[in-house]
Amino acid sequence: MSDSSRPISSDPVDDSAAGDPTAENSAEGGLPAADPIRERIAQAVRDVREQAPLAQSFTNFVTINLVANAQLAAGGVAAMSFLPDDVIGSMSISRADYVNVGTLQPFYREALPRIARAYHDAAHPWVLDPVAAGIGETRTAILAAFRETPPTIVRGNASEIIALADMWGLNAADTDGNATDAAPATSRHRPAGVESVDDVDAAAPAAEALARFLAANAPESRRRAAVAVSGPVDLVTDGERTFRLPGGSALMTKITGAGCSLGGVMATYLAVADPLIAALAASALYNRAGETAQRRAHGPGSFQVELLDALWNLTADEVAASPILPV
Amino acid sequence: MSDSSRPISSDPVDDSAAGDPTAENSAEGGLPAADPIRERIAQAVRDVREQAPLAQSFTNFVTINLVANAQLAAGGVAAMSFLPDDVIGSMSISRADYVNVGTLQPFYREALPRIARAYHDAAHPWVLDPVAAGIGETRTAILAAFRETPPTIVRGNASEIIALADMWGLNAADTDGNATDAAPATSRHRPAGVESVDDVDAAAPAAEALARFLAANAPESRRRAAVAVSGPVDLVTDGERTFRLPGGSALMTKITGAGCSLGGVMATYLAVADPLIAALAASALYNRAGETAQRRAHGPGSFQVELLDALWNLTADEVAASPILPV
Amino acid sequence: MSDSSRPISSDPVDDSAAGDPTAENSAEGGLPAADPIRERIAQAVRDVREQAPLAQSFTNFVTINLVANAQLAAGGVAAMSFLPDDVIGSMSISRADYVNVGTLQPFYREALPRIARAYHDAAHPWVLDPVAAGIGETRTAILAAFRETPPTIVRGNASEIIALADMWGLNAADTDGNATDAAPATSRHRPAGVESVDDVDAAAPAAEALARFLAANAPESRRRAAVAVSGPVDLVTDGERTFRLPGGSALMTKITGAGCSLGGVMATYLAVADPLIAALAASALYNRAGETAQRRAHGPGSFQVELLDALWNLTADEVAASPILPV
Repeated sequence: MSDSSRPISSDPVDDSAAGDPTAENSAEGGLPAADPIRERIAQAVRDVREQAPLAQSFTNFVTINLVANAQLAAGGVAAMSFLPDDVIGSMSISRADYVNVGTLQPFYREALPRIARAYHDAAHPWVLDPVAAGIGETRTAILAAFRETPPTIVRGNASEIIALADMWGLNAADTDGNATDAAPATSRHRPAGVESVDDVDAAAPAAEALARFLAANAPESRRRAAVAVSGPVDLVTDGERTFRLPGGSALMTKITGAGCSLGGVMATYLAVADPLIAALAASALYNRAGETAQRRAHGPGSFQVELLDALWNLTADEVAASPILPV
Repeated sequence: MSDSSRPISSDPVDDSAAGDPTAENSAEGGLPAADPIRERIAQAVRDVREQAPLAQSFTNFVTINLVANAQLAAGGVAAMSFLPDDVIGSMSISRADYVNVGTLQPFYREALPRIARAYHDAAHPWVLDPVAAGIGETRTAILAAFRETPPTIVRGNASEIIALADMWGLNAADTDGNATDAAPATSRHRPAGVESVDDVDAAAPAAEALARFLAANAPESRRRAAVAVSGPVDLVTDGERTFRLPGGSALMTKITGAGCSLGGVMATYLAVADPLIAALAASALYNRAGETAQRRAHGPGSFQVELLDALWNLTADEVAASPILPV
Repeated sequence: MSDSSRPISSDPVDDSAAGDPTAENSAEGGLPAADPIRERIAQAVRDVREQAPLAQSFTNFVTINLVANAQLAAGGVAAMSFLPDDVIGSMSISRADYVNVGTLQPFYREALPRIARAYHDAAHPWVLDPVAAGIGETRTAILAAFRETPPTIVRGNASEIIALADMWGLNAADTDGNATDAAPATSRHRPAGVESVDDVDAAAPAAEALARFLAANAPESRRRAAVAVSGPVDLVTDGERTFRLPGGSALMTKITGAGCSLGGVMATYLAVADPLIAALAASALYNRAGETAQRRAHGPGSFQVELLDALWNLTADEVAASPILPV
């Protein structure tokens, strides 16, 4: 990093803190080492590595390779499909699915709502990545349609979470989970692009409202859901409990697909764990892996290589010890 | 590899054996060093590097980049196309094509059979990768249509080879190459997914029947064909001779696209060699490259980087000396 | 590089020359170190890193990931879209766009001309990469349509530039910018494939004619344009001044996407600079990055990693000091 004006070199990760995250946990009121949530996170990491569950993806063309490689590096199995007959035909062997609305093609407008309906009818868990929510008529139509058959987890940046909650007519005062009492306020969405223009904390009310809506409108056999907001500090909530997860690396924003592949890995964990634990485990894994990769990388090219290696090499205990701060 | 439960760390490649594969060849009854097949493999490796032949691909979006990079690293030239007018228009400058039925789009249902028909009519050699054979109506329709205009080589994992042979109504007792005496048994296909659930050896009868069918139904000007089954030990057959090729690395299953890019490189070799030699050369190259990459990698991220470097750096003699065991 | 027949090992970059490019500039009559063009290049490199402009891409599936990662490594922000409503909806937040006609899908035939029309009507700057110009009816129809609403920069290899100029009825004797006095000579296009079969210098007349045509037919509010021809020595022209830029690495032809990602980075620079400076800055950046990467790489796998790291680490002054030789 020869250019001192770059954000990454002016804000280095402190190796000592990264080496002992439990210190940061304690100092900042993080979850105690013995908290059951940490054990459940470690268990999810181990279960994925032992069971190698298949999590199918319908995702964008930019980062589809990294999503698959990240799921494999985490210990899962990947399969990518776009045709409804393909996706629905594989639902029986996939334990959780990932849907990302980047790089839309014309036929997605019919295909994605149809697939979401099939997930809903089968009570099949899935993660939605509402990439660029608020941009384009087709994307807005697809995301609006998902309101009737909502995902189990939504993962996005702050702007996307706010845009989706806004589009679905959700706010802190109106989140009783009644899916029909408010028309989707599509006219209120904001053109956020693919990069967030909002702080993670600013998205907390929207994230919590969204999580409560997802849980309330889930198939009856499962009433749990989660929302993960990615940023310099991640925010994860199930609508009742909210956590802040510091960590990661500024280089994650200098490669394409850190967020998408995190969403894919969240689906991999959702294959073996409940939504809150899956969202926490994947976020914690990425934060630790990002720190490890940054210490070894010389730029964004080597960072991506090191990130995949770190996803593979981190132990379940290292992941579970990542800073998790109840809000 | 800090997690001792991972397959890769518990089953390391023995460097000494990898360094002297002819020892393994001799010990296990492999082809002698002077066997003409080894010289023809070496010649194919050299010819690709000297002639830089173009092998065009119609392949899935997950691993399309790795397929192109692997073909380039092997010494060939890559071009990827999806429109029939594009693919058929490039047929005159491409010496062999690669078709992979992953990540299908709706228009492929018409496009792929039309392209296969053009290959057949022009006696243009091509490699088929029947990814996820048995999953989805569209894929089944496409693969069933290929029976009338079969490829020169089929490369897949054991489950895919079994599913394809089954779908085409082939079995050891009924493989006289008569393409019309049995309707494609599409109802008998099995949902194998993208990961094999069958052993390579279990696929040997299907592979041999398939190879005989391909050869018998090839355009008159070329009556040779091959089938390659990828796995911990690869199996390659032209329907008359069958070989087992041990080697490679368990990390090949921890990145996406090892199989697809092997198929692409097989097409590159098919541009300069006959089907059996092309299938053997590409499989041997990948086995050696996988071993080299595993010795240098620290996880799946660096493994992919090292794999491409190894495809580039291995000598023709090193590839030809890889273990090849007649069955 | 164990195989001495490979081009890369037989034609090594001279480290000493690469370490002091201004020496080569002086020795070969290059632009003086104090030339204002060099300062404007350095300023473009700095502006991108400080402003992080969004440059949207409509690009092929093979190298879409590398295009995005290269734009990010250069300091910009990437977004990839294919639907007209998506692309046009993002035009207000993207400061320049990149269009690459590789891996066409059927709907592009209507979509791309519509998008180009929207760029033209909004005087939105964009870079065209006419990949495989001359191959296929659909590509020819799309490229012919672009003649009415031409891009700000065209970047391609020599064969593509010649094919495009030919298709648009341009030649040195008939380039007064009158877009309607000659029907597109589509019947004269040549099947160049994705690899150039022509020398960069052989494309100079076509490149200059094309640049003059682009400038003359640009929206009134901007009458500047440029053409960049990539090869062992790059050629960049605005139709009035032409420059040769030696440098780079032969390994750039052994990975897929060096050219595409150069085009994407050109759009990133076009977001902050005029067309000639954007084309020169991106070409110079790639030449220096290619040299740096080659010195550190052990093959094409590590070369791509090192290339991205070098795009990130090179200083603005290092880029601006790259050899630039007025023709």
